[in-house]
Amino acid sequence: MSEINRIEPRTLPGFMELNPNDQVKFNQMLDSIRNSYECFGFLPLDTPIIEFSEVLLAKAGGETEKQTYRFSKGDSDLSLRFDHTVPLAKYVAKYYNELVFPFKRYVIGKVYRGERPQKGRYREFYQCDVDIIGENELSIINDAQIPSIIYTTFKNLGFDKFTICINNRKILNGIFNSLNQSEAATDILRIIDKIEKIGEEKVETELEMIGIDEDAITTIIRFVMIEGSVDDKLLSLNNLEITDEIFQQGVQELSDVVKCMRSLGVPEDYFTIDLKIARGLDYYTGTVYETFLDDYRKIGSVCSGGRFDNLAEYYTDKKLPGVGISIGFTRLFYLLNQMDVIKADKEAISDVLIIPMDSEVDDCLQIANTLRTNGINTDIYFEDVKMKKKMRYADKWCIPYVLIIGETERETGLYSLKNMKTGEQEALNIDDIINKIKQ
Amino acid sequence: MSEINRIEPRTLPGFMELNPNDQVKFNQMLDSIRNSYECFGFLPLDTPIIEFSEVLLAKAGGETEKQTYRFSKGDSDLSLRFDHTVPLAKYVAKYYNELVFPFKRYVIGKVYRGERPQKGRYREFYQCDVDIIGENELSIINDAQIPSIIYTTFKNLGFDKFTICINNRKILNGIFNSLNQSEAATDILRIIDKIEKIGEEKVETELEMIGIDEDAITTIIRFVMIEGSVDDKLLSLNNLEITDEIFQQGVQELSDVVKCMRSLGVPEDYFTIDLKIARGLDYYTGTVYETFLDDYRKIGSVCSGGRFDNLAEYYTDKKLPGVGISIGFTRLFYLLNQMDVIKADKEAISDVLIIPMDSEVDDCLQIANTLRTNGINTDIYFEDVKMKKKMRYADKWCIPYVLIIGETERETGLYSLKNMKTGEQEALNIDDIINKIKQ
Repeated sequence: MSEINRIEPRTLPGFMELNPNDQVKFNQMLDSIRNSYECFGFLPLDTPIIEFSEVLLAKAGGETEKQTYRFSKGDSDLSLRFDHTVPLAKYVAKYYNELVFPFKRYVIGKVYRGERPQKGRYREFYQCDVDIIGENELSIINDAQIPSIIYTTFKNLGFDKFTICINNRKILNGIFNSLNQSEAATDILRIIDKIEKIGEEKVETELEMIGIDEDAITTIIRFVMIEGSVDDKLLSLNNLEITDEIFQQGVQELSDVVKCMRSLGVPEDYFTIDLKIARGLDYYTGTVYETFLDDYRKIGSVCSGGRFDNLAEYYTDKKLPGVGISIGFTRLFYLLNQMDVIKADKEAISDVLIIPMDSEVDDCLQIANTLRTNGINTDIYFEDVKMKKKMRYADKWCIPYVLIIGETERETGLYSLKNMKTGEQEALNIDDIINKIKQ
Repeated sequence: MSEINRIEPRTLPGFMELNPNDQVKFNQMLDSIRNSYECFGFLPLDTPIIEFSEVLLAKAGGETEKQTYRFSKGDSDLSLRFDHTVPLAKYVAKYYNELVFPFKRYVIGKVYRGERPQKGRYREFYQCDVDIIGENELSIINDAQIPSIIYTTFKNLGFDKFTICINNRKILNGIFNSLNQSEAATDILRIIDKIEKIGEEKVETELEMIGIDEDAITTIIRFVMIEGSVDDKLLSLNNLEITDEIFQQGVQELSDVVKCMRSLGVPEDYFTIDLKIARGLDYYTGTVYETFLDDYRKIGSVCSGGRFDNLAEYYTDKKLPGVGISIGFTRLFYLLNQMDVIKADKEAISDVLIIPMDSEVDDCLQIANTLRTNGINTDIYFEDVKMKKKMRYADKWCIPYVLIIGETERETGLYSLKNMKTGEQEALNIDDIINKIKQ
């Protein structure tokens, strides 16, 4: 083998590669998200990671296109998916006649963005999405289900304190419209977003500087200063007396969403209205969502999304409105794991490690089979090494029990079961061992 | 939107894209495989789909290299993984000091091969692998665990009739060695593989034609003609009286594997020795496995693998022997689904679809929340369409129950629960509905 030219076993920067113990936690959290999504009746989809560039980049441009992993294979111009929304649009347009609507799907899978690598930013990462796609119309009640999904998902993940922030883009659009400032919308949003940092007066000055007139500024400031409970805010919005139809529609939709969320059991502590959320001006057209972990607000929104008018206009003339959210899971996991705040129900894959004391392994194998057929995940250590090394194996993979089997055990039918957390050791028969491990 | 230049929503040939009902079955089978693998204590790993070409192709060449999706991004020469073994080798070499051995991992994930697309062959497909990697040594008993894993996995997938075929490469190598025909091994294997088709005499002729002498041919034919039960075959191998050490070792290992498999409870009906299995000459060095579904033998081996001497020699000087298997799941699913022989425990994601009869949805939402918090996957149909269309939705996604909620139901507290399979409809209170749906 001396002729082998060894290569350094490197992993690409920006690509997460976990150790098995973290992977166990990672998978458990993904499973939990999947169960939460399925609890609301969302169907699974698994689209290819590679698509024709023409299809994937039909709408894209700017940053997205620059970050895309794009390449040729044979005559084909191919790209790796950078989100799950574009593949969903393609899927719904392609299989339109084979689906029934509203079409509710979830997807949990990897997407690719060739961003500049930095701590906590990944080039390959899991996105966990749910979307509800309607045919021509989609009832606003669907928008109220989304916060219920977010609530369930994060509760099931073990989080106690988080806030779902809701807004409706029509409210912002309606105000800017009524003030004849639709074109300045981006600039106004950018300025008012700073009000907590720079204060009311400086916001007024900056708005003046971009040419907004006094009356408009008064309305904008009144709007931005709206505070209080969810119901206070809805009332204040009505008190603005803006007659613009889009605005009125936005306020009505927001009220409906709040009302239905409450019926769906989302507790008051877990949501709020945040009138400044816009989430990009192009895509979302109605309800928008952001979610913050109250204790880790600095990591930004952990689950965002909203209502869009038309999912698949680049592929079909069918009008397909929708509403959905996405969790960027890889980054979230990285940050939470760094802070050591992930609660895993189960730390190990194996419930027990069998350690044979000698080379007579027949009964060890039989016992392993018995445990496994009783639903107990069972590992066995066959290698001929010192006991200390065998115990280290159980420790390393967090295996909660070790079952030691030697000559004495074989003769008596009583086997030493060691609890690795407490150090407690008991001699038990197989039935008792099964019961003990299953708790 | 008239300016939109619409693109045909195409999917790449050779890339599987399932409808949601099939995806439900697909995911269920993958979950079942995962549970089986975890039952034996294998740890999960999830390595990147993209790697440095230098790393991924350290060993490759020929067909593999030609089929690889390889491309540049910035200054990096990148490739998509074409199996899980090379990334495992990289992983173990890279994280060697952070692991304990034997290192047992499973992986269920997509791999990429730019093969010529043809029916049932995919360019993107799931491989489900387990491997046990030792440090310097790895006990032969691990080789016996593999058939137990295969047995458990395919039983849990719902298969009743399948055969795990076992062999040991040392037996073949030892025979060829003892006959001084190591260099002709590939040719001899190719010829003897045809014995069932062309008969003993023609095999003899062909062996003569490639220059094998008479004595050697006699031994080869005696070897190939070995028949009978597993124990008969082991006996016949001993009766060949070949003194070659490698041969003897192979027979001993095969005997040990059979003995331990039996202790692990693999029933006699489910395994056999097939002395002709070689599985490529380069890679495997000891025990080899193939698995056939008895009723669908023509689809070939559905789970194969074996023992290898050194996993990661291209990345490290550590000696890492291992044993493992792989299921090419995408192709298997495609073939079984085509034949309509997949048994899914659960056809639908949702256990029940709530259908509101009017626009008073508050109680529907409350009931949905109650059902969901009781662990029942619950979908609601909010859109204002004809009843027939709502029922079609439930039908399409195989939802077993429909719960109809209107004014009468609200007043009485008794809701109509319709069993979609039997057509039976009952008026029940919420508690009874929960019990009924949970069975």
